[in-house]
Amino acid sequence: MQEKSAKNTIEVCFSPHSFPLYPHEECIVVVIDVLRATSSICAALHSGVERILPVASVLEARNYQSKGFLCAAERQAQKVEGFDLGNSPSEYRNPKLKGKIIVFTTTNGTQAIRAAREAYRIVIGSFVNMTVLCEWLAKQHKNIILLCAGWKDFFNLEDTLCAGAIAHTLDKTNLFETNYDSTLAAKTLYETAHKDLIGFMENSSHFKRLEKLNLADDVKYCLTLDLAPVVPIMEGNYIIHHK
Amino acid sequence: MQEKSAKNTIEVCFSPHSFPLYPHEECIVVVIDVLRATSSICAALHSGVERILPVASVLEARNYQSKGFLCAAERQAQKVEGFDLGNSPSEYRNPKLKGKIIVFTTTNGTQAIRAAREAYRIVIGSFVNMTVLCEWLAKQHKNIILLCAGWKDFFNLEDTLCAGAIAHTLDKTNLFETNYDSTLAAKTLYETAHKDLIGFMENSSHFKRLEKLNLADDVKYCLTLDLAPVVPIMEGNYIIHHK
Repeated sequence: MQEKSAKNTIEVCFSPHSFPLYPHEECIVVVIDVLRATSSICAALHSGVERILPVASVLEARNYQSKGFLCAAERQAQKVEGFDLGNSPSEYRNPKLKGKIIVFTTTNGTQAIRAAREAYRIVIGSFVNMTVLCEWLAKQHKNIILLCAGWKDFFNLEDTLCAGAIAHTLDKTNLFETNYDSTLAAKTLYETAHKDLIGFMENSSHFKRLEKLNLADDVKYCLTLDLAPVVPIMEGNYIIHHK
Repeated sequence: MQEKSAKNTIEVCFSPHSFPLYPHEECIVVVIDVLRATSSICAALHSGVERILPVASVLEARNYQSKGFLCAAERQAQKVEGFDLGNSPSEYRNPKLKGKIIVFTTTNGTQAIRAAREAYRIVIGSFVNMTVLCEWLAKQHKNIILLCAGWKDFFNLEDTLCAGAIAHTLDKTNLFETNYDSTLAAKTLYETAHKDLIGFMENSSHFKRLEKLNLADDVKYCLTLDLAPVVPIMEGNYIIHHK
């Protein structure tokens, strides 16, 4: 809940399902889907992808594909058959993608982006762009909602830890009010886990899901700070690298 | 999300708003509203109150009052004008209430009870009945959802800490699967905070709300283990002390 304060606020929303409860039209919403959509988006823009068009459904992505667009689709942590790309950041760390436009749909991440479409501004967050993202956020003088994409509307740990890391980092600027219950919880979890994020994550549901699919390298990439230092923001329907 | 396991599961749901996402018809749902509804319910039954009728609206409570029932109503952390009782556990630690029936409506707690009405069984949880509650839960051989009442559908810290304490305690029995993301988060928060729950809670929203109303004694009571060792369960429309 927003309460009056001279400082700008940082609140965490644990799932797109709860997001409509938060007044957000005047807020910057940071969409976080660490494993793996927002990490992949950062990786893609860092590789020089010109822009990304997030779409909510596989059907929409297929329509774009039939018109000749380069399309990425993931459901249940796997690439959807017939698409050019899936949701592994390793696919997007590819210099050949420089200058391309990519249409992108994933299980959770693109749904969260859609949920936030009426926000003042949507920006993409992950561990891989933590430092530049926080530097950018600190300059905006707006209230912030950290929107965890979760897993099919359920709470998840990795997005919460990332939200906690952002709140922890911005707290040091002394520019923000962070004593909301959800923000305190996320920050505390991050501060408890940060020395060994991968170890802490080992019991989590999505970690196991990805491990079964031999995606341990993806997990390691996605939980590492500052590997893709970009600030992806929504401009109209596209995500671009804000320079 | 429920996943297959030989053990019974313990999941935490952070708000009544998210509760419909959880399949719960076959589950025991522990409704948790530490500050203060579920603590007051425990205090009342421990004082010998015969049964409690939770109702969702003040209007319903007024109807019962007009029929001569003893009625409690709280909104915005304060007693609603014209009612016999509010939502302070201190009002319920009163031997004169022995044998009484109380109609009860609160901002969050009774709404959460209502949200869970299709569960296999509803039981009331708080720090004040932690040990006996966990002993009872361990004997039921059912999946458990720890439903945090939150604050107006938002996440709150005190209910999450209590859910974490229950998961932490039951984890030791080795009877349960607790590695769901929400359960891991709640457990970790409790394990981080448990040595100084009140200190940890000092920055939380509801703590401040109650402090402003001079309810620090209530907070202290509600965060203390085992002061009201009862197992309040729903039987039909009533909450009774399961003996």
